Amino acid sequence: MVTFSDSDHFWKGGQTLKVPMELFKENRQRLCEILRCHRTLPPDSFVLLQGGKSEMRYCSDHEPLFRQESYFHWAFGVIEPDFYGAINVQNNESILFIPRLPPSYVAWMGKIKETDEFKKIYHVDHVYYADELEKVFSDLVGASKLILVLNGLNTDSGTESKAAHFDGIEKFHVDKTTLHPVISECRVLKTDLELNVMRYTNKMSSEAHKFVMLNIKDGMYEYELESLFQYYCHRYGAMRHMSYTCICATGENPAVLHYGHAGAPNDRRLTANDMCLFDMGGEYCCYASDITCSFPVSGTFTKEQRIIYEAVLDANRQVMKSVQPNVSWIDMHLLAERTQLEHLKLAGLVQGDIEEMMDTRLGAIFMPHGLGHMLGIDTHDVGGYLEPHTRSTLPGLKSLRTNRLLKERMCLTIEPGIYFNQALLNDAYKNEQLSKFLNKTEIDKYLHIGGVRIEDNIFITKDGCELLTKVPRTCEEIEEWMKNNKKQSNDNVDYELFDELNKKYQYENQYLSIKTSN
Amino acid sequence: MVTFSDSDHFWKGGQTLKVPMELFKENRQRLCEILRCHRTLPPDSFVLLQGGKSEMRYCSDHEPLFRQESYFHWAFGVIEPDFYGAINVQNNESILFIPRLPPSYVAWMGKIKETDEFKKIYHVDHVYYADELEKVFSDLVGASKLILVLNGLNTDSGTESKAAHFDGIEKFHVDKTTLHPVISECRVLKTDLELNVMRYTNKMSSEAHKFVMLNIKDGMYEYELESLFQYYCHRYGAMRHMSYTCICATGENPAVLHYGHAGAPNDRRLTANDMCLFDMGGEYCCYASDITCSFPVSGTFTKEQRIIYEAVLDANRQVMKSVQPNVSWIDMHLLAERTQLEHLKLAGLVQGDIEEMMDTRLGAIFMPHGLGHMLGIDTHDVGGYLEPHTRSTLPGLKSLRTNRLLKERMCLTIEPGIYFNQALLNDAYKNEQLSKFLNKTEIDKYLHIGGVRIEDNIFITKDGCELLTKVPRTCEEIEEWMKNNKKQSNDNVDYELFDELNKKYQYENQYLSIKTSN
Repeated sequence: MVTFSDSDHFWKGGQTLKVPMELFKENRQRLCEILRCHRTLPPDSFVLLQGGKSEMRYCSDHEPLFRQESYFHWAFGVIEPDFYGAINVQNNESILFIPRLPPSYVAWMGKIKETDEFKKIYHVDHVYYADELEKVFSDLVGASKLILVLNGLNTDSGTESKAAHFDGIEKFHVDKTTLHPVISECRVLKTDLELNVMRYTNKMSSEAHKFVMLNIKDGMYEYELESLFQYYCHRYGAMRHMSYTCICATGENPAVLHYGHAGAPNDRRLTANDMCLFDMGGEYCCYASDITCSFPVSGTFTKEQRIIYEAVLDANRQVMKSVQPNVSWIDMHLLAERTQLEHLKLAGLVQGDIEEMMDTRLGAIFMPHGLGHMLGIDTHDVGGYLEPHTRSTLPGLKSLRTNRLLKERMCLTIEPGIYFNQALLNDAYKNEQLSKFLNKTEIDKYLHIGGVRIEDNIFITKDGCELLTKVPRTCEEIEEWMKNNKKQSNDNVDYELFDELNKKYQYENQYLSIKTSN
Repeated sequence: MVTFSDSDHFWKGGQTLKVPMELFKENRQRLCEILRCHRTLPPDSFVLLQGGKSEMRYCSDHEPLFRQESYFHWAFGVIEPDFYGAINVQNNESILFIPRLPPSYVAWMGKIKETDEFKKIYHVDHVYYADELEKVFSDLVGASKLILVLNGLNTDSGTESKAAHFDGIEKFHVDKTTLHPVISECRVLKTDLELNVMRYTNKMSSEAHKFVMLNIKDGMYEYELESLFQYYCHRYGAMRHMSYTCICATGENPAVLHYGHAGAPNDRRLTANDMCLFDMGGEYCCYASDITCSFPVSGTFTKEQRIIYEAVLDANRQVMKSVQPNVSWIDMHLLAERTQLEHLKLAGLVQGDIEEMMDTRLGAIFMPHGLGHMLGIDTHDVGGYLEPHTRSTLPGLKSLRTNRLLKERMCLTIEPGIYFNQALLNDAYKNEQLSKFLNKTEIDKYLHIGGVRIEDNIFITKDGCELLTKVPRTCEEIEEWMKNNKKQSNDNVDYELFDELNKKYQYENQYLSIKTSN
């Protein structure tokens, strides 16, 4: 029986990735090293994190598939709900507190593992029961009686992370402010072991995107493509969770940035002239991927589709060539925007002076979202804004999920896009400052495209970036890959063909030579 | 563009089911008819239900795919979050209260629909904004100022349903007790329109099970079968949600009743001698299916596998032949248990007097769960226990999710099983009362089977039941169906073959003639 518990790895068998438990130990060490340098922190303090709880849907007993809380996962890699974890800042010693399970667990949920088994599985120093938290802490904590818990703002959600709590915690000194910024910054910078997981999720999600492109057919419904993507990720990548709800937008739907949600559930029928904007990514061991492929259903770009696609690709690649430590993400956003506007001007959709367009924030009409975001255990990963959180109020820039200077070991998405959102365009036509730049007659010819987004995941190296996403990206590559699609004359899903083609076509660092330190 | 909003139906295109909005209107009417007969209720009262809210995971901005709250869905069929709905008890008039969305919604989530559009989509009489609740209720409610809200115990989860709330509700008379038992009993009895949806979810989930059986191979991991099931349900049935977490148990895992959860995530590798216990079901328009198929990986039953399988199948079919209005579900549980014990005695696993075994509750060692449960918008649907909730404290019987007399129009699962749970058996061996019945030497020969469950979904008719589940059930049928599995020599998923076989083999009311009123 392949499990977790028999090895030193999180592993799902076969060709799936072995993730060593060392990854989490290293994370804890990193955290403690920084905390030990903290000037005002007594050396005998403990970190306490509370894992996610098992929950039921509304009043029913339906339990959605549990997914671990992200900070807790980062520190311990525990897959089960209802745990606590503590770390001795002085010496990195780790303690897990496990729930005491009722005897009925053995019939309904499985063998009840003892503390020693969990100690072995998760490579921690001690394991106790969660109902012993107060007692254990009373024995352990030093004179300072200081427990650091997690409390701070997530700048994407606007939600505060919930501080760990147990009955009796009021007997200790609880510090709610120190931990959050430190552990968040640790999460921003990925270790080699973390990078390896992200390479894997990106590779498997890239494959799944190619699989979808190979099997797409005019007349299908968008959700069928979602089902194919999930199937590939789950079956071949053991990615049981998606990183986020799949966006399978066709026709005019790509103009809706978060299409695919319950109110717009990927249920349009594809026609031959559609562009697809498929933003989908799987997660493995709770590490995300976040990839968008845009391509024509037919497998061949029309003139208009190609113009928009190449504008976005150019923006994507300009940014990819420019990123390196100390580069400002705001500058990258503006670079992408400027590149796109230049292409739109060349094609006659906009007219006038580019710098003037930039000043009026015209670009945000076509790209209302930010260029990209941190990526990690959360899709919109933490650490995008350093305290104090100063977000721009300008169109486009206010949507940026980070405004930071890049640092080596950050993981980010680069995802420029051009969208034809009728409502945003109508607003712009009515706006004196903006309307003069817009050539409505030309723009109208592009409305049916909906939008194009090209989203890659990168890791910042010491002098550039490593591109994690490996899919056909140029128009030529896409058309070449999709030629094989014609062989799919029925609903059969031909894995062998896919596998064979995959050996033939490689999409490693394509289009331009991306600097890597790998 | 196929959506919801263009038609009178919830529909996902192609061969998927058209669910008329009339279904929800009829549900509201049924509810009002009963409430109007309520002796102490003023005739001018209103029902107020609060729909599910959109939520984010922990402190992040990750939004799990929204699934509507079940009571609200039953009454309104609304797919979006953050709605309220009201019903005028006197005349069935319906009102939806929709969230007022920010202007940015148009770029991120899609077109902002006006009240009139929602009125048309959901076939309700009036639509207002949720921030108008107090004002609208002030204008509407009669002299009694009575608002009925939902508050009551879910007997499966032990959780209270949360009463609807809006700012200013304290100005009205809020009744928290009347609605819950009435609406729950309405949910217990399915209309023809509801039955039709449940026939559909059962049919598509049955197909998906057959698809899995056709594609299973020695050496696969359990999660691969989960991925195949979900793929079929999603692609061909437009079932984006599963009714519950898939249980793909092989080897000794079938002994764990709710295997497949995050702590035991379907990650065992299959061997040729395994029995599979696959408990999986998709939902469509929020109506569940809940089907378990047990079968050998090899496609051919061994002697031991067949003995256990046929014992469980006999129990399943004995119950199916016996159900009809006014039959006690406790009696059905005991019938299944007795049937299974008789088979086990015949095979030499247990010895002694069957009635004595029944008295000691020996059967619960082999079947610790209840025979079945209500099925509907929740997998463990509401209404299993009438007030006051009197649950047996006896082994096996205490796990029953209903103790009621059957009624025409109930939907239930029939899911007897025999499990070889080492921990439960060890307890029994140590128990003087139980151990004398157990033949350890024989039982040990069956441990590797883990367990067998055969779960069908039925609808109670006026003189029997309609069997909704249509899968190969006898050993012969399973072996015949799985013979075709040998053609799957690779990882390709051959839909055409499946489709062709499906036309050849029908599994309608197989094995015995089930009485139906259809």
